[in-house]
Amino acid sequence: VLSVCADATLVDITHDIPPQDIESASLELAAAYRYFPPATVFVVVVDPGVGSARKALAAEAGGYFFVAPDNGVLTPIFADHAPTEVVEITERKYLQPAISRTFEGRDRFAPAAAWIARGTPLRQLGPRLTGWQVRALPRAQVSGGRVEGTVVRIDRFGNLITNITAAMIGSLTSPLTVTLGARGPIPIVGTYADVTSGEACALVGSSGHLEIAISRGSAAERFAGARGDNVVVSGRATIPGCHDEF
Amino acid sequence: VLSVCADATLVDITHDIPPQDIESASLELAAAYRYFPPATVFVVVVDPGVGSARKALAAEAGGYFFVAPDNGVLTPIFADHAPTEVVEITERKYLQPAISRTFEGRDRFAPAAAWIARGTPLRQLGPRLTGWQVRALPRAQVSGGRVEGTVVRIDRFGNLITNITAAMIGSLTSPLTVTLGARGPIPIVGTYADVTSGEACALVGSSGHLEIAISRGSAAERFAGARGDNVVVSGRATIPGCHDEF
Amino acid sequence: VLSVCADATLVDITHDIPPQDIESASLELAAAYRYFPPATVFVVVVDPGVGSARKALAAEAGGYFFVAPDNGVLTPIFADHAPTEVVEITERKYLQPAISRTFEGRDRFAPAAAWIARGTPLRQLGPRLTGWQVRALPRAQVSGGRVEGTVVRIDRFGNLITNITAAMIGSLTSPLTVTLGARGPIPIVGTYADVTSGEACALVGSSGHLEIAISRGSAAERFAGARGDNVVVSGRATIPGCHDEF
Repeated sequence: VLSVCADATLVDITHDIPPQDIESASLELAAAYRYFPPATVFVVVVDPGVGSARKALAAEAGGYFFVAPDNGVLTPIFADHAPTEVVEITERKYLQPAISRTFEGRDRFAPAAAWIARGTPLRQLGPRLTGWQVRALPRAQVSGGRVEGTVVRIDRFGNLITNITAAMIGSLTSPLTVTLGARGPIPIVGTYADVTSGEACALVGSSGHLEIAISRGSAAERFAGARGDNVVVSGRATIPGCHDEF
Repeated sequence: VLSVCADATLVDITHDIPPQDIESASLELAAAYRYFPPATVFVVVVDPGVGSARKALAAEAGGYFFVAPDNGVLTPIFADHAPTEVVEITERKYLQPAISRTFEGRDRFAPAAAWIARGTPLRQLGPRLTGWQVRALPRAQVSGGRVEGTVVRIDRFGNLITNITAAMIGSLTSPLTVTLGARGPIPIVGTYADVTSGEACALVGSSGHLEIAISRGSAAERFAGARGDNVVVSGRATIPGCHDEF
Repeated sequence: VLSVCADATLVDITHDIPPQDIESASLELAAAYRYFPPATVFVVVVDPGVGSARKALAAEAGGYFFVAPDNGVLTPIFADHAPTEVVEITERKYLQPAISRTFEGRDRFAPAAAWIARGTPLRQLGPRLTGWQVRALPRAQVSGGRVEGTVVRIDRFGNLITNITAAMIGSLTSPLTVTLGARGPIPIVGTYADVTSGEACALVGSSGHLEIAISRGSAAERFAGARGDNVVVSGRATIPGCHDEF
């Protein structure tokens, strides 16, 4: 990057995405990008199809730029902001002279991103695309006074982060009950320190999603929690016409 | 940070502090800060009490600035340099509009640090404080010709770093004997390569504290070393009046 | 570094070299350096002999600068480009006032690198050297229509990277057969996605060396692969005078 754009400011959001884990990359990026300055160029190199026929994308969305393999990793970004431009990165003059089939992050994505940072219009990097891969993330279901979702990400503290949003929970009638598989009820709180050290809690975390945590501990360890685990938030059962009158 | 202060230089001292480990964060910061340029702004986000009633601090000490939760993590800094200003970070115009109760590093500490880097006086960030949390670190004891301390930190090489300083050792009478719990004597040397590969040694490390190491190996693994382990340095016994005269 | 050279751009190539592993450091540096801008200063602090009589080097080679312990870690760089200048870093005015015997990376290498970045000629850092440590890396052998090499590095994806180059393989007669110890034959492909998920493959990776991989998996885990493991690429046996005429 610095060979093309010497005054670029480089920020390492994370190098800790598990290998080939497009879903984690997708969620980490979606949680972080809006806190960066306008026109930031984000480069994603979680790319199990590197060197294959899958395309390399450069996109503009929400006032930011994104360079990534066409494997659906940008799905949550494009759900937030419909992209105003998407191109396939093909123009050789903006790439490394020799392109490894196993490290396009170095030879294709990084130089393209550097040229974008220098102000090169996306359209010069290659042909405009009208279609791309979309990766459906598991969605939580709201029905019958309850939300049923799953663990979609585990952070380095061992918090189990779900696909259940604050808005979904807001639609339920208090008091609420949270369960993780057969475990629970787990109390809903505002922050980790609201329960004593070592106790389980559920709370809406910094990306707006419900998570299961152990105060000063690891829910992933305690509960052997894994992605895909079932999490249910139940509101108070309200039976129309039943008013405790008997 | 870059959204507020576009020309900030960001340095990642470490993202490898064990979760919630205030003591490790404290010692890492104390070992590193003096090597940075004057007026550097240090941000500490080891914060088990995030979102609770604990305060967020901005402080000036020793010509540097520090932004951290009020959990005692700055204790060794303030022991080196009495702070010339400490404020609670409350002024909303210097913070993210919405403040998550689980990620104040992002919503409170980082923007405040960026404003300080831009030259905002601490006093504008919130009210001046006259008291804050102090976190007592275990102190080594010098008495009777010996120093008794403990392992307080383990680095990524598996070196067991103690709270015994070079000055404490300097007060003893040579020759010296070092023990780790029931193990020893361990020879005191100048650097790891002074003993052959695989051998144990004790030395004064780069932060001025005695550490137990294995040359080209890991003392933490070999000795199952852990924080709190007892380390004793004994000088030659000197009995007043006894001069080997018989 | 920033205390000496405030406008330096810092890039963390990696902090994940296994402790004391000069060979890994050497190969990582050799794979990365040519992608950086001319006159970049590279600092290597994999230094099991820290504080001993081993020298500290500053070198210019291939239009780049290198600061490293004299332990052979620069061998592949100097094989690519004979150094135009090599000095021992001794001049105290370019170093930290107090030099720890266990952390010369901080007290000697980093300040020297910063002064070089500021434009200080190498010759001012200390006396010119005409000899230095060379570290022989295991070399693959080509003979009798086969290449016999070893695994020299394992990356974070679990790919087993060998010392067999694309040029060595190019000298063989197709079809080729690859074996890892007693395992194989392993098919040679262009990239990981050329075989189905979970299958083994061999390919020329991004640094021009043959590697053994599992598509979307870890060859290190599957094969319990380790450095030093034997890898053989065999071409078709060609017996002079034998033309399938019978």
